[in-house]
This record gives sequence, C-alpha cells and structure tokens, in this order.
Amino acid sequence: MDYTLPEFLAHAIALEHEAAERYLELADMMETYRNDEVSALFRDMVRYSRLHHDSIVRRAGTIALPKLRSWEYRWTQPPEVGGEEAFDRALDPYNALLYARENEVRGLEYYSRVGQQSSEPEVKRLAAEFAAEETEHVEALDDWLARTPRPSTPCRDDADWT
Amino acid sequence: MDYTLPEFLAHAIALEHEAAERYLELADMMETYRNDEVSALFRDMVRYSRLHHDSIVRRAGTIALPKLRSWEYRWTQPPEVGGEEAFDRALDPYNALLYARENEVRGLEYYSRVGQQSSEPEVKRLAAEFAAEETEHVEALDDWLARTPRPSTPCRDDADWT
Repeated sequence: MDYTLPEFLAHAIALEHEAAERYLELADMMETYRNDEVSALFRDMVRYSRLHHDSIVRRAGTIALPKLRSWEYRWTQPPEVGGEEAFDRALDPYNALLYARENEVRGLEYYSRVGQQSSEPEVKRLAAEFAAEETEHVEALDDWLARTPRPSTPCRDDADWT
Repeated sequence: MDYTLPEFLAHAIALEHEAAERYLELADMMETYRNDEVSALFRDMVRYSRLHHDSIVRRAGTIALPKLRSWEYRWTQPPEVGGEEAFDRALDPYNALLYARENEVRGLEYYSRVGQQSSEPEVKRLAAEFAAEETEHVEALDDWLARTPRPSTPCRDDADWT
C-alpha cells in the first residue's frame, strides 16, 4: 500500500463521499424513528464528512486522480442487515451507532496504515492528519454508544460477523 | 418478508440497478486485463440487468415505491478485497466470476424466499419469474468458471468469508 499522492487522494475523496452518503441514510432512518438526538449526531457527521471531502478535493486541485472500483471504498453492510435474509430490517439507534463506529475504525485503520507504510512525505503527512480526524469521530460515537440503550435481543450472533 | 407489491418492486429495481453497475465495473476491470472474453460476458450481464430493470420499472408504472437504504440491496464486497487492508487489490478473472456468482446466488435466494413466503399472488408470481432468471445467470457464470483457471495463490482463507 505504497500509494502515490493521486492514488491516496482518490481513496480519501471516495471514502469521505461514501461516509457522507451513509450518514445521511442513517440520519434519515433515525428521524423516522423520531430519535432526533441520534439523527442530529448523524447529520453532524454528514457535515464533517462533506467538509473533509471538499477540502481534499481542493488539495487535489488539478492532479489527475485514478478511477476506483466501488469495493475499494464502500462501507461494509451493517452487521444486523448482513446476508440476503434481512433486506427489510431497520436499524435501531444502538446498532446504527455501532455500524458507524465500525466504519470509522475501518477508515482510521486505513489512514494509519497508509501513513505508516507510505514513502511519500505528503501522503504520510495527510494520512496521519486524516487518521487523527477519524479518531475524533470514533470517540464521538463511543460517547453516544455509552448513552444509548443496547437492544435486548441481539440481531445476530457476534460470531457471525467480524 | 411478506412484501407488498410496491416493496417487492422497489427491491427488485434496486437489485437489478446495482447488478448492472457492478457488472459494468467488472467488465471495465477485465478490459484493463485485456481479458476480452470475460469482459464481454460481464457486458452481456450489464445488458440483461438493465433490460430486466427497465421491464420492472414499466411493471411498476405509476405505483409509489418506498425508498430503500443502500444496505438493503447492495452487493457484498468481493471476497478477496474484503476488509480494510485490501483497498488496492484488483480482481483476477476467476475471482471476478466467483464474486458475480455469489451475488447472483444471493439474488436468487432472495427472490425464491420472497416467492415462497409472500401471500400476495402477484408478488409470488413475479418473484418466481425473477428467481428463474437469476438461476440462468448462475448457470452462465458456472460455465465460465469451469473454463477459467483458478489463481494459484488464494487471496484469502475460505474460513474468512461466507
């Protein structure tokens, strides 16, 4: 994963765009649950992701970026809707937060690894900066998880997903 | 999963749209590998998915359809690019076919189950028809898999994904 700067910027832009899209879905879903607090949290996350996305686009400027495949940046499925049997299930707030957290951690680990492994100073610098930002998001989600009741019936065995 | 007709149509439209998008990505990727035969197969799959999509849209006509969340219809990640460590890996033809097959089977199982469980005659009828179509796709992919050399190094342990 020794990215060139254009490769890294393309991934970061796609990750932030994807994050904003998913947070918007989660915010809308929490709104239908009339859970305005968690909905507002997700709308904040939408805003942060878009701001970050736009700042990376500005940083990229006129650099030609490679085209990515969807699976190179997409969020994983939320654990409790994984598999083909669960198309019609909705997320409760606790699992929505957990889903968001899983994906923030995934982003954090991704940026950290790029930062450690890259030999390009500008990639290293940006990756470390982005990793720090993801860390803040994980902490914000942890605060919310601590205040959110865990649903009594687990949707899926822990062993079923990692 | 006792869908109303609008719910079922919304899922089917989203599934076919998603399938067309993913087949297009796979076709493009195989083209960059100069594997024109497998690329042509995926372009055929794009066309079939779009035709099917358009026919379901026509069937839906003026029926108001519910809005779905991305995770209710999205393809899973290809097995060998799963997880955050593999953002920069490309698919070889064998694994691309396997990825497509996994998702066709997922669609087939989904349609079959809806067909069996639904109490609405029109949902039952359409779901059975769509399941039969997915079965043909799985068979086409099986034919290609039988003719495609398996890469010598497995990308990931079988135990890692289901």
